[in-house]
Parts: sequence; C-alpha cells; structure tokens
Amino acid sequence: MQVDVIASVNEARTVELANRTVIVIDVLRATSTIITALAHGASGIVPVETVQQAKQAARDGDITGGERNCKKIPGFDAGNSPFEYMGESVYGKRVVLTTSNGTRAIHKASKADVILAGAFLNASECARTAYQLRKDIAVLCAGTQDEFAFEDSLCAGLIVTELCRLGRQEQEMRTNDLGSILVSAYRHHAGEITAALLSCSGGTRLAKLGYAKDVEYCADVDTVSVVPVWVQQMMLPFAT
Amino acid sequence: MQVDVIASVNEARTVELANRTVIVIDVLRATSTIITALAHGASGIVPVETVQQAKQAARDGDITGGERNCKKIPGFDAGNSPFEYMGESVYGKRVVLTTSNGTRAIHKASKADVILAGAFLNASECARTAYQLRKDIAVLCAGTQDEFAFEDSLCAGLIVTELCRLGRQEQEMRTNDLGSILVSAYRHHAGEITAALLSCSGGTRLAKLGYAKDVEYCADVDTVSVVPVWVQQMMLPFAT
Repeated sequence: MQVDVIASVNEARTVELANRTVIVIDVLRATSTIITALAHGASGIVPVETVQQAKQAARDGDITGGERNCKKIPGFDAGNSPFEYMGESVYGKRVVLTTSNGTRAIHKASKADVILAGAFLNASECARTAYQLRKDIAVLCAGTQDEFAFEDSLCAGLIVTELCRLGRQEQEMRTNDLGSILVSAYRHHAGEITAALLSCSGGTRLAKLGYAKDVEYCADVDTVSVVPVWVQQMMLPFAT
Repeated sequence: MQVDVIASVNEARTVELANRTVIVIDVLRATSTIITALAHGASGIVPVETVQQAKQAARDGDITGGERNCKKIPGFDAGNSPFEYMGESVYGKRVVLTTSNGTRAIHKASKADVILAGAFLNASECARTAYQLRKDIAVLCAGTQDEFAFEDSLCAGLIVTELCRLGRQEQEMRTNDLGSILVSAYRHHAGEITAALLSCSGGTRLAKLGYAKDVEYCADVDTVSVVPVWVQQMMLPFAT
C-alpha cells in the first residue's frame, strides 16, 4: 500500500488522487470543526467553496458557518471555531460550511474514491479507517493560502506514522519522501503537540485573534472517534 | 532576516529568489561533488543544464563530468561521484558538470543576488557565509525530478537550524512553515544522518547502483570548509 503526502492544495494534481482514499487535513480549523460538529450530532456538513454557494445551499433549519481571514462571515450563524459546534443547537442540524482553505481542499479531492477528513482529534481512527479500505492513500494537507502549513503537515506525520504501524506486520506500507520527513518531524514533537501548534505561524495568528483555546483544542490527539466521509456532497460520520 | 525553504526546483518562483542569498542543496550528489572538487583544488565548476551544453562549454584541459539516471554520461571524463573529484587529476582543472537535478537548480536560482552551494559536508560554514551577507535567504532544495527529496530537505533543516542559532542573539531570524518542520525533522535525525540517508529513497537507489560509499561520504557533517559561490557562470570557493 502506498501512502503519499501532498504538501498543499496547490500541489494536488487530480490524477494523483484518482483511485485513492484521500485524507484531507486542515487542523486549524476546518477539519477539526467538521469532526467536532459530527461528534455532537450534526446530521451532515456541506462544505462549499464560496460565500455565495453557502447562501444558495442553505435550506431552512440549516446552520451557515465559516470564516474569511479567520473571522465569522457577516450574516452567517457561526464562525469556524469548533466550540461553536458543540452545543445542542447543532444536534440534528445540517451545517453549510465555507472556509478559506479546508473546504476548498475537500472539493479538490473530489476525484478520489473516498474522501475522509482528518485532524489530531481523530488521527488514529482516521488512519485505521483509511487502512481498512485497502486502497492507496493520499494525505492532502490543506495548507494556508496554497502554502505548506506546519500544523497540517505535523498531523500528516502522525497519520502516516499510524498507517505505517498498522501496515508493519505485512511490511507493505510505502511512503513518499515528504511522508518520511513528516514522520520524523512528528516524532520530534510527539507528546508536545499543543506547544508546537501554539508556536507555529497558524497557531500564533489564531491566538492573536483570541482563538488560543481553539488551537489548544485542535491539538488534542485522539479525543474524538468520528471520521467524516464525503457522501453525496456532504461529510457524514463513517459507519464502521 | 527571513529564511525560507523551497521544497523543490518546481516550486521556485524567480520572484522569491530576487534580492536574496540562495543556498542550493543537492546532497546526493551534485552540491556534495562541487564542494569536494573545489576543496581538492579544482579551479572552478561550470554547471550546465544539458549534455550538449557541457560539450560546447568544455575547453582543452577541462574535465567533463556528470550523470544521467545516476550513471556517468558516455564520452565524459567523470561521473557524479565525489570520489572522482579528489585526486590530483582535478587540481587546477576546470570541471564542466551536468546533473539531473542539481545543476538545473543552480540555473533556476540565477536571479538571486548571491548563489551558494550547500550540503551536509559544509553545512555550518555555508550557513555562516549566508548569514554574514545580511540578506534574506532562500534555501532551494534541488529535489529529485522536481519532487521533494528527503536528503535535501534534511540538510535544509540543518542549515536553517544553524542560521537560527547564528541569529538568536539578535532574535531576528524568521523561517517559513516548511523551514520550521524541517528543523524538527533534522533534530529527530541529528547524530544519525548516515543511517537516515542510507534508508531514504535517494540513498537506497544509489546504494543499489553500487554508490553506498558516496551516500556515506555525503552524510558527513562539516567535514569541508569550502563554500562554493556562483561568479560569472562558475562556482568558485567563497573568499572569506
């Protein structure tokens, strides 16, 4: 089984994703928020690329959510903080979500066989789900404005580490050079992910805007067992 | 001072390199070979992109060197192994060199203010030289066929680590997210670079072709103090 990490949406060529399971990662904060909302009973997340598309997609009873420049979009019900998707208000509701990088990455992966959403919150469960599908895997880091992002690549390093552990007995897991380097980087930071995320550029930017708690929450490893999967233009919990 | 790492030639936009000191890295083996040849008294290295250009550039008394698919080019005097550039035969001679990735990366950097060649062999001295030039720095990993290469990025991690150490007192060194992640990856492998290079895809490929000794040699840190600099279409030793 081959697992390749793709550094940013900018580098995702559609051909690389076909016939693969793609794990999309946007730790700060889109995939962390999607995982959280589904864990709290949202009936589905509809990721769309533009504000206009969000307005068109939203039906009565839906929650409109998302951000531009890390801030809530005017007229929307919620921003992109996972803490906004924890209350009873989200239970049973559909969420239409548009973010700067993460929702675009999900759409970029649309030619894949299966699309999963990964983050630190569900890393091990996400790796296990992808492994059980027995297809080659692409780990697509959303990045920040098409650039390589520290937090996404560190999470990719953890997920590749888990995949290699799962495939160890069969000695069947191969990764690309970026995957290897990210495994090394993850191992260097294992056990202190929160500190690493608070000091990286994406984490610092969010903390300055008052979202330090979001960064700390998103740095928690394996606290949620939900793995979102793309089904009919929506992210739903993967049924194991 | 800003130091940004660029993952591969493919991602080097000329605009990012202007007004900067660019450190080109092709550990296996172009920049390691250039450093070695200059340390052994070669009068200059002329890096060219194609075999045809090498033939045109070579004058009487020059050594023609290089590789395609890791192997010596038919009719050339030498391949791309650093061990071929150590003997007396290289002393006082000009070397016209063409390799698959490294010499192309040097040409890609041609809009930079200053171009230096870095590798594990001269990492600390290369960082010190770049730092003393007091310009923003781009570390350009040559990569392998336009793709991210483990060995180049690990060396970039070491050079950024050194640059951050040099700039620490003035708290003035900033790096991009890729630079940060490569510092982490380097720290994970510090002290066992040889093992890391022998097990990565580029090192494994060379070892299979009988060049394991080259990989081991290129993994030695700070054994050579020469820093090649691009002057008038040639790499010469930087005069400190």
